[in-house]
Amino acid sequence: MDRASQETVDRIRALIASADPSELDVALEALHPADIADVLQELPDEERVAVLKRLDTERAAEVLTEIDEHSGQALLQLLTDHEVVSLVEEMPTDDAADFMSTLPPDTTRRVEALLSAEDREQIQDLMRFHEESAGGIMEAEFVAVRETATIDGAIDVVRASADEIENLQKVYVVNEAGQLTGVLKVLDLIVHPRTSSVREHMETQVIAVPVDMDQEEVAAMFGKYDEFALPVVDHDNRLVGRITVDDIIDVIEEEASEDIAHIAGTTEDEIGEPSVFKVSRSRLPWLAAGLVGELFNALLMDRYQITIRTFVTLVFFVPLIVATAGNTGMQGAIVVVRELALGEIDVLDTARRVLKELTVGLLNGLVLGAFLFAVVTLWQHDIGLGLLLWSALMTVMLVAALVGSSIPLILQRWGIDPAISMGPFITMLNDVLGLAIYLALARIYLAHIA
Amino acid sequence: MDRASQETVDRIRALIASADPSELDVALEALHPADIADVLQELPDEERVAVLKRLDTERAAEVLTEIDEHSGQALLQLLTDHEVVSLVEEMPTDDAADFMSTLPPDTTRRVEALLSAEDREQIQDLMRFHEESAGGIMEAEFVAVRETATIDGAIDVVRASADEIENLQKVYVVNEAGQLTGVLKVLDLIVHPRTSSVREHMETQVIAVPVDMDQEEVAAMFGKYDEFALPVVDHDNRLVGRITVDDIIDVIEEEASEDIAHIAGTTEDEIGEPSVFKVSRSRLPWLAAGLVGELFNALLMDRYQITIRTFVTLVFFVPLIVATAGNTGMQGAIVVVRELALGEIDVLDTARRVLKELTVGLLNGLVLGAFLFAVVTLWQHDIGLGLLLWSALMTVMLVAALVGSSIPLILQRWGIDPAISMGPFITMLNDVLGLAIYLALARIYLAHIA
Repeated sequence: MDRASQETVDRIRALIASADPSELDVALEALHPADIADVLQELPDEERVAVLKRLDTERAAEVLTEIDEHSGQALLQLLTDHEVVSLVEEMPTDDAADFMSTLPPDTTRRVEALLSAEDREQIQDLMRFHEESAGGIMEAEFVAVRETATIDGAIDVVRASADEIENLQKVYVVNEAGQLTGVLKVLDLIVHPRTSSVREHMETQVIAVPVDMDQEEVAAMFGKYDEFALPVVDHDNRLVGRITVDDIIDVIEEEASEDIAHIAGTTEDEIGEPSVFKVSRSRLPWLAAGLVGELFNALLMDRYQITIRTFVTLVFFVPLIVATAGNTGMQGAIVVVRELALGEIDVLDTARRVLKELTVGLLNGLVLGAFLFAVVTLWQHDIGLGLLLWSALMTVMLVAALVGSSIPLILQRWGIDPAISMGPFITMLNDVLGLAIYLALARIYLAHIA
Repeated sequence: MDRASQETVDRIRALIASADPSELDVALEALHPADIADVLQELPDEERVAVLKRLDTERAAEVLTEIDEHSGQALLQLLTDHEVVSLVEEMPTDDAADFMSTLPPDTTRRVEALLSAEDREQIQDLMRFHEESAGGIMEAEFVAVRETATIDGAIDVVRASADEIENLQKVYVVNEAGQLTGVLKVLDLIVHPRTSSVREHMETQVIAVPVDMDQEEVAAMFGKYDEFALPVVDHDNRLVGRITVDDIIDVIEEEASEDIAHIAGTTEDEIGEPSVFKVSRSRLPWLAAGLVGELFNALLMDRYQITIRTFVTLVFFVPLIVATAGNTGMQGAIVVVRELALGEIDVLDTARRVLKELTVGLLNGLVLGAFLFAVVTLWQHDIGLGLLLWSALMTVMLVAALVGSSIPLILQRWGIDPAISMGPFITMLNDVLGLAIYLALARIYLAHIA
């Protein structure tokens, strides 16, 4: 949701307060439903209802599909069941199904009972599909004609559904069994002679989405084939729905939020969540896991207590070693996960991809290690310590590169979403491994110079 | 780019090797240009050219716009300038401009010289706009009719441009000055009487994109208004181009990659980059900055050397304090940046948003601190140390929450992309602050018990 400009909000509020509602009507008429939704989000409940009641049902329904879930629910509690039903009937079926799934279960049941049989069936069908599958994001509205129809016949079908379908751009062609056999652009209806047959002009190389495909794969198909809408088919290639690209934009935003939330060690539900308790609860598990991991580091240092007491300067560099290990592993993990998501690499490339990460780790370890060697040797006047840190940093970075790049690839191979590996887990693992390597090398070094 | 199935690649390679090219033609005919591009990416250079030469110019141009930059450039070196020119002339102007900008400068000049005057001018115009502005992603092709035209006249215009324009869905309406005054759906051309005027049926509430708008804002407009294509206007409201939603999907993917790369401490150019030297170079600055930051930690610990020597157990918990500070700050920063990107909050909410983050930090600090207190007290049999760690962890988490959430909001207010604050910088700052707070509290504690 965007935020409405303060100016627009103030103007609308003044008009709600004024005696003459016709001026409010004029002001609302000039706004796009998405802009009205933005304004409503800034208003108190009673003013929201005042605005909604001034809109005709069609526009009110459009506003409701654009508004955020919290504001929408608050608004609905002030409407009667019959008012809710007439709004739902104006929505495209996919929006209606999404909207119904945000209602309290008993409201859903009451509203369903009041819907027309056809609408109820279509919406219930859509609500049965998994939320993140093609079936879950498709709409039941599409325009289909038979192969045997003429262009003129197809135009009649399009005309009849012009009201119901926004953004129509392609007409789907089906055979007697309802199976998808071709597509025709709306443009073709204008360009070709009216008496010629649909079969003659249809494109037979049809790109269709299987109804059970994951929404992330559907988004990849849209990205690849540059289409505005794609037909959805069941396992028998029967046409069951249509997915439009505006829903795909939401999917891509959602998946990006999910990935970014994973990195932060929280869930995407947190974004925009007003309750601090819910936010706190979604972050706490990750922080706690990180804390437990770092307790291993405390145990490790306890084990090496004698080494540390003998040579306290060693601990000055503990945060540096640990942080660099964490950063290196994170870089590898994040880039590998993103490349997997964009289809740039696949799991078959594991060995090649990990080797690349090791080479990068080695290169960067050499450069940073040399810099660290110079700083430490000049500061502490101790070439031995400088060499220890150089070798420790390189080893730690190599191990972190290996861990960071291989874990997402292994998870992907096991069928687990690799995005979870971008979270605090890999960083914590590399912290612990990095400290263990550093302290072990330090003990060997001290034994050597003793 | 996706990866082609090994099966398809093998089949195409066998057909390239076979004596009869007609079978290769049949196999290629059945593939979508985007799928052919996927196959080409898996082939050696000479086989790529062999495939490209079997395609007609239109399909070859489509394949070239879908192929990745590296494969495309390799392919072009094997074509003559005239072959390149005929391919460029088949592309939509936005793809042509993008494509030309990937060519070596002298090739660009030679190809430009061979283009028709109209194409050259349009492409050069597009190449002048900033790559990440509306002008940089728009295409020069659109269908515009005069307000005074009839539906029949509009149909003629659409028919004449049917070949050149893919995915036409709306016709733009302009006045004598070329200013955008309305839009008409292609569907309207079918639905309305042929002799009625365009002005009668056009929608006058036009959503248009200013030519200098940043592509991220353009993507937000598409997300908000659910349109498949939007007209682009200059500062005088003159129609200059059209942006289609398929280009917006690329923008959203690109911006998500950019944000995720920032978090990793690298650049989005790295994704899919085959050269380890380039990858190493894009990551090194962040790692080096992190390393320099951690050197401050070494200095800090040096300053507190006496405290550490007196009570070595203190350092056991340094990685824990530092890591938790880093994680807490990262969570705040990443969520705030994402909320800013999705328009869930704006900079005017600074105080409210930071306060929420502080509350979450306090809650989580209390819970984790209590857990740490219990573990440390049981392990070290030292309630004082337990209380020190509890209070240190809470203070450190509060400061990290403040730093993590306020820096992106401040950057946004200063007009700097807040995404950069998700990188290693905030983590490093919180590491240093966390350690400083912990050591300072520890010294106070030791002075107190001494």
